[in-house]
Amino acid sequence: MNFSIVRYIIGYVLAFEAAFMALPCIVALIYQETDGWSFVITAILCLLFGAFLLRKKPKNQIFYVKEGFVTVALSWIVLSVMGCLPFLFTRTITNPVDALFETVSGFTTTGASILSDVEILSKSMLFWRSFTHWIGGMGVLVFLLSIIHVKGSGSHMNLMRAESPGPSVSKLVPTVRSTAKILYLLYICMTLVEILLLVLGQMPLFDALTISFGTAGTGGFGIKNDSMAGYSVYLQVVVTVFMILFGVNFTAYYLILRKKFRQAFSMEEVRCYFLIIFASVVVISLVVREQYGSFGEAIQQAAFQVGSIITTTGYATTDFNLWPEVPKTILVLLMFVGACAGSTGGGIKVSRLVILMKTIHKELHTLLHPRSLRKLKLDGHPLEHETVRSTNVFLIAYVLIFAFSVLLVGFDGHDLITNFTGVAATLNNIGPGLELVGPTQNFSIFSNGAKLVLIFDMLAGRLELFPLMLLFVKDTWKKF
Amino acid sequence: MNFSIVRYIIGYVLAFEAAFMALPCIVALIYQETDGWSFVITAILCLLFGAFLLRKKPKNQIFYVKEGFVTVALSWIVLSVMGCLPFLFTRTITNPVDALFETVSGFTTTGASILSDVEILSKSMLFWRSFTHWIGGMGVLVFLLSIIHVKGSGSHMNLMRAESPGPSVSKLVPTVRSTAKILYLLYICMTLVEILLLVLGQMPLFDALTISFGTAGTGGFGIKNDSMAGYSVYLQVVVTVFMILFGVNFTAYYLILRKKFRQAFSMEEVRCYFLIIFASVVVISLVVREQYGSFGEAIQQAAFQVGSIITTTGYATTDFNLWPEVPKTILVLLMFVGACAGSTGGGIKVSRLVILMKTIHKELHTLLHPRSLRKLKLDGHPLEHETVRSTNVFLIAYVLIFAFSVLLVGFDGHDLITNFTGVAATLNNIGPGLELVGPTQNFSIFSNGAKLVLIFDMLAGRLELFPLMLLFVKDTWKKF
Repeated sequence: MNFSIVRYIIGYVLAFEAAFMALPCIVALIYQETDGWSFVITAILCLLFGAFLLRKKPKNQIFYVKEGFVTVALSWIVLSVMGCLPFLFTRTITNPVDALFETVSGFTTTGASILSDVEILSKSMLFWRSFTHWIGGMGVLVFLLSIIHVKGSGSHMNLMRAESPGPSVSKLVPTVRSTAKILYLLYICMTLVEILLLVLGQMPLFDALTISFGTAGTGGFGIKNDSMAGYSVYLQVVVTVFMILFGVNFTAYYLILRKKFRQAFSMEEVRCYFLIIFASVVVISLVVREQYGSFGEAIQQAAFQVGSIITTTGYATTDFNLWPEVPKTILVLLMFVGACAGSTGGGIKVSRLVILMKTIHKELHTLLHPRSLRKLKLDGHPLEHETVRSTNVFLIAYVLIFAFSVLLVGFDGHDLITNFTGVAATLNNIGPGLELVGPTQNFSIFSNGAKLVLIFDMLAGRLELFPLMLLFVKDTWKKF
Repeated sequence: MNFSIVRYIIGYVLAFEAAFMALPCIVALIYQETDGWSFVITAILCLLFGAFLLRKKPKNQIFYVKEGFVTVALSWIVLSVMGCLPFLFTRTITNPVDALFETVSGFTTTGASILSDVEILSKSMLFWRSFTHWIGGMGVLVFLLSIIHVKGSGSHMNLMRAESPGPSVSKLVPTVRSTAKILYLLYICMTLVEILLLVLGQMPLFDALTISFGTAGTGGFGIKNDSMAGYSVYLQVVVTVFMILFGVNFTAYYLILRKKFRQAFSMEEVRCYFLIIFASVVVISLVVREQYGSFGEAIQQAAFQVGSIITTTGYATTDFNLWPEVPKTILVLLMFVGACAGSTGGGIKVSRLVILMKTIHKELHTLLHPRSLRKLKLDGHPLEHETVRSTNVFLIAYVLIFAFSVLLVGFDGHDLITNFTGVAATLNNIGPGLELVGPTQNFSIFSNGAKLVLIFDMLAGRLELFPLMLLFVKDTWKKF
């Protein structure tokens, strides 16, 4: 492992984190909140720590996949550890594990909170919480790649691969740097459009900003205790639409911008994603229609909750823990499905499910026609063996981490649904689960030990398991 | 598809089923029960139907993997449909779906019942229920192969492969026929030893027979409403030991018989199986020790339940639905682990988990050392790519069938734990789940629709998914 370059990139990440802290400082200035000082101090600490790591340039330029994975995993951990300091400095949260949980939940765009009352938080704190979603949504290393040139041959592609969600990374344009730039431009523009539409619907600017950050990153931290339930139907619909849009593979938007409409609309993953949303909304609204005033309201509520869960955002406008079993079961299944690859959403990802389904289909086909040599195809192109294999391995690792987490969290003694959906909500970066971690509840019921397991799950989920798992392999820590 | 040979083999299966019916007839004669007639009539129907299918010999001798899969799937369905007739003829069960559920549960060695009071059943009925476990445990086609020579080149291996549990079939001796004979001899001897030990412990012969059938097939139908709770500690311990022994890969016993002790005791799957059992018993007995009179009793209760669940037998001596969360979570996880491949147990199988774990390990190794070309090994031998691939595909199909079943069963409106563990208990051929399908409950709460889903799950679980899935592919039904 080439540690010198890993160290160097983490130094950059810290410098960026210091820069990000400027925004909550400005919010504190506007609202005249003393909490602002905690961000100034944290930013200074980030800069000092970053300068220490950046003090000498790495001589060795080697940067393989493993360096990419380890850099990303460590960057996210460092980012979260430093990012939780403002909560502790201001005593908004006093337990360090809680503060780390909240920050990891922010960066990983989970949106699971340990706070029972968020309305007592200062504006700058609320802003920082939601802003971590926005940073984490598209990825901090992708951001870094779009701005500076990182040393190390192959470093760009390997960092992008480790941080971007999905079974394979598609470069939109020949260089990784330009791809990262395009992705961030799309991300910023779509966020701005959402903010604009929310403000036009008479949402206060502060709410519009924080809620848009949460939607864009598919995070889900609310700034109200009832999440999104108190907002008007128009605002809820805008958020529904944008949650679903941010769950689409960004490649589709790029294709649309390049006027390749046919290509964009024939993407199998995107079609399948909309099909699942449509089917879920139809079934749920039919089942819950009697709980709401009109069928229209039932559809709107179903669409919000389905959009929120499949994109792994986690906002809620109704307590779906009180829904009948079928809608609840559908939501639990959607927790695992997740959004499209190449979006800001979490979960297993629709493209992986499409590949897995095709694998089954191919297996049955091979049983019937043993001599046929059909290759798996996606969007008309044959799938690389590498992608199929890594998708299979992902599922295995996913199932094992899931099972092990449920077991460990079980030692707290809560009911199985709470543990099961609590792990599902964190590993898939959603936020709320069912029962004791339902949309009107929070994660403070868990012990510190269980919270550490869930922190691991959130990071493992966001970084798609392997970067985090690699940290637990002895060989990783060997110098060359 | 070569339907003529499929038809022919199913004819044989029916003839064997008619022969099996002789045993409950004898029981009816001994206990002077009129129920015996229902078995006589069913046996005659089986013979007539069988003779019809056997009326002309198949000319075409082609027998590929697909013929094996389809033959096995259809044989088991026919076997179950005919096997449920005695329940209907005697009006022991009046709903045909219930009768089919009970019979499929028997043959697939699930042991899930729709009967709330089994003690009112006649002796011959109880005997037939338990005997279906014994037939299904080692497999009816394996039985057939050990006795008659089936037509079709490659038919023996392909039938064995389709019916035997596990990622790959290991022939103990060069011919499939001799392998099947050895397996059945081991099976019969071990069953006889258990019967003897139970009778020595003063269990009535009838109980000893039926309970041994249930243990040997890892089925789990009880003949008492409290399953095994009413028996003495000695009898419970004997059953515990035999449940665990029947969950061991039979290859180990063959190796022991051949005095290849080192090879037998170094089988990775078997070691891992005992390790999981040991760890689970230790953790559970520590957690539940205060619920029982002594620590010894806690260990005995934990061992019985762990042995019953991991081997997918499903007997119970205590209501584990009342245990704390950690033991319950461990049992739920064990439901999925299942027994060893090449045993009579169900579930995912320990060897598959071992292979899956090794796949993860290899993936991490490849990330760190991209140029290394290490092959996966099991018991010192490199694993065939075919086995690894089929294990991966198995997991995918398993997860998808599981998720889809939970969703469909959800339409009945029961709680998620009931649905989740109900599907787990049937797909893994265990028997009891938690909550409404816990060890003191039964499956009669489900609607006919949900029962049909669970019947599919039981058959899919016993035949390891693909034979059943193949029936739903259009191409399967094409003539050449």
